[in-house]
Amino acid sequence: MAALLSPLAPKSYPELPAVAGVRFATAEAGIKYKGRTDVLLATFDPGTAVAGVLTRSLCPSAAVDFCRANLPGGSARALLVNSGNANAFTGVRGKAAVSMSADIVAHAVGCAEGEIFLASTGVIGEPLDAQKFAGVSAEMAGRLKDGPWLDAAKAIMTTDTFPKVATATVEFHGHKVVISGIAKGSGMIAPDMATMLSFVFTDMPIAAPILQGLLQPLIAKSFNAVTVDSDTSTSDTCLVFATGKAEGVAPVTEANDPRLEAFAQALGDVLHELALLVVRDGEGATKFVTVTVEGATSDRSAFRIAQSIANSPLVKTAIAGEDANWGRVVMAVGKAGEPADRDRLSIAFGDITVAENGERAGNYSEADASAYMKQQELEIRVGIGLGDGAATVYTCDLTHGYIDINGSYRS
Amino acid sequence: MAALLSPLAPKSYPELPAVAGVRFATAEAGIKYKGRTDVLLATFDPGTAVAGVLTRSLCPSAAVDFCRANLPGGSARALLVNSGNANAFTGVRGKAAVSMSADIVAHAVGCAEGEIFLASTGVIGEPLDAQKFAGVSAEMAGRLKDGPWLDAAKAIMTTDTFPKVATATVEFHGHKVVISGIAKGSGMIAPDMATMLSFVFTDMPIAAPILQGLLQPLIAKSFNAVTVDSDTSTSDTCLVFATGKAEGVAPVTEANDPRLEAFAQALGDVLHELALLVVRDGEGATKFVTVTVEGATSDRSAFRIAQSIANSPLVKTAIAGEDANWGRVVMAVGKAGEPADRDRLSIAFGDITVAENGERAGNYSEADASAYMKQQELEIRVGIGLGDGAATVYTCDLTHGYIDINGSYRS
Repeated sequence: MAALLSPLAPKSYPELPAVAGVRFATAEAGIKYKGRTDVLLATFDPGTAVAGVLTRSLCPSAAVDFCRANLPGGSARALLVNSGNANAFTGVRGKAAVSMSADIVAHAVGCAEGEIFLASTGVIGEPLDAQKFAGVSAEMAGRLKDGPWLDAAKAIMTTDTFPKVATATVEFHGHKVVISGIAKGSGMIAPDMATMLSFVFTDMPIAAPILQGLLQPLIAKSFNAVTVDSDTSTSDTCLVFATGKAEGVAPVTEANDPRLEAFAQALGDVLHELALLVVRDGEGATKFVTVTVEGATSDRSAFRIAQSIANSPLVKTAIAGEDANWGRVVMAVGKAGEPADRDRLSIAFGDITVAENGERAGNYSEADASAYMKQQELEIRVGIGLGDGAATVYTCDLTHGYIDINGSYRS
Repeated sequence: MAALLSPLAPKSYPELPAVAGVRFATAEAGIKYKGRTDVLLATFDPGTAVAGVLTRSLCPSAAVDFCRANLPGGSARALLVNSGNANAFTGVRGKAAVSMSADIVAHAVGCAEGEIFLASTGVIGEPLDAQKFAGVSAEMAGRLKDGPWLDAAKAIMTTDTFPKVATATVEFHGHKVVISGIAKGSGMIAPDMATMLSFVFTDMPIAAPILQGLLQPLIAKSFNAVTVDSDTSTSDTCLVFATGKAEGVAPVTEANDPRLEAFAQALGDVLHELALLVVRDGEGATKFVTVTVEGATSDRSAFRIAQSIANSPLVKTAIAGEDANWGRVVMAVGKAGEPADRDRLSIAFGDITVAENGERAGNYSEADASAYMKQQELEIRVGIGLGDGAATVYTCDLTHGYIDINGSYRS
């Protein structure tokens, strides 16, 4: 059966500090689950900037469409997220559901609909009953607080076995800026320009276009570099809200502001950590795997080869079986469709070189390789030997747990 | 545990007639397995034409390299196939092993090395001990027969649970031409221009370049249209041998020979049947699934969307769980990267329309859809609503059996 808690779950959670200008509440709206929270309402002080990336799926959810329309405005006052229903492929009714949701939030919070962001996660194709938000929104708006963040992370979980939070702090001339984020995701994880659902909050004063410019490349190295099962969600959404309420920090209004380097580094760290937490909660996962490809003809080519390895069911089942089956890594390199020369290929599991120059390493030891595979955190390193392109992709193994979870998800 | 016999196995096997000019024998060379045959030696009368398609993997096996070098010659006298070792990613030693194999066969059969074809299937990365062929080749050459074909099909199996054979007969002016084929394959099946291993034999008199010209488009509709696990083998090989010994049939020497239409139809039928048998023996498979996409902007686009659905772990696990989770079909359409308009999409499971115009069908019945999913043979039909492009891909479900088989394949 599916694990109650992923064996790769973090042993403890960081304390997330309050983010000035952000308050939130959670509630049980009864969307699908019983006896647990399934709605998160977050509000932002006036002047909050927003940036985001959304799924590239051509069958996006109604909530994704809604966010895509509001993002160019760059301004956010409220975020409503529900779990249990993705409101995806729900046609006219889906569109009506997001309109009603926005209307309910606008009244509860007192803001324009163009400053509201919505996200839904859960079953695809079931109409979402937005009336359920009417019953809880005003009540939630009456008890907004600046913590605890774990409650926010829990309310947006579906098949997740643990809540996902990450935080970082940057100092500018002695003044602190906080960046705190939450994410959810466990299956249908192969984000294409965004993740399942992730929300990051900061009190950094930064203009929306500049924040958006920072976000895109950071996503490439974080959420777009993880895969659980090669399946890209209809609902992938990553939004970053910047309230600008950090005390004593002058607003960033220019893209060449020297403070952006430190801020981008910290924001990137939070996104990277959240993305890795999604992999650690991959459906049925028992191993965390880092796939690094070097020596490809370009970074893009290296990324595609790393994806081919990380998405291969044969590689992933071998890892689940603790089998040092590097021949399947060769197979995955070969099928990637990217420049590769079999006879220059080298493969290492951790520090153990298992293959070089197109064949098994001379000093290959099955015992050493097998012992390595018993570890919970594994690294597969592949040298292509053709250029300088490099990329890293994070994934997990493919186990009976994945089959259990996904053979009966709707029932 | 893995099934001893796939539940999708055919209930009976056709009687394969002898093909004039083809004789073969099998033996136990002890490559890897104990107590079963693992080598097939087939010989062809002088004048036999050969055509073939080989894996597009950039990490092909040494045997694939060898066949690729010999195919342009267009002439075949012998075929040696072994199971238990793929002789892939074996570097200089792999090359030496094919040289030695060809030398052994050349002496046993009495032919030139340029007329020999080799194929190996099994573990990747283990050196192949070609000396083992020396012990059995001369002996096999001494007892070549024109049947039974099931023995030939059994000798090339690896994780296959049943031998795969197919046959067709064409008549020209009262003279029969026989086409008989064998195949193996169960996992690492997402052929790209060829299958795992398939060999087809015919007594049709046909020039090699014409046969090669026929083969390529037929492969596109057969082996390239099946997928078990999206993993493309390093060893995919499909070879067609035409002995020209059919009595009373004049040789085909021109590409516009009117007899080619009937011959291509029959050859295509044999390839199609063999390809579907591979899916029916997909590792751990319990359901046979036909995915048909229509209304795409091109056939190529339809094919890519069908592949995206057929390769999706979430679609395949839902099928295993008999869950009519058409939302995952929407997801797979959305991630395919091909032109699609969510709001024109329609989806049917068999004759049951489950979604149309971008949302759940008005008369959708969960009970009907669920009842349909209990069948062993399923059809998923997707209408894109944008053009005339159509394609069909065949696949199976993703079950615990797949994990069992592939978590411990090498050990």
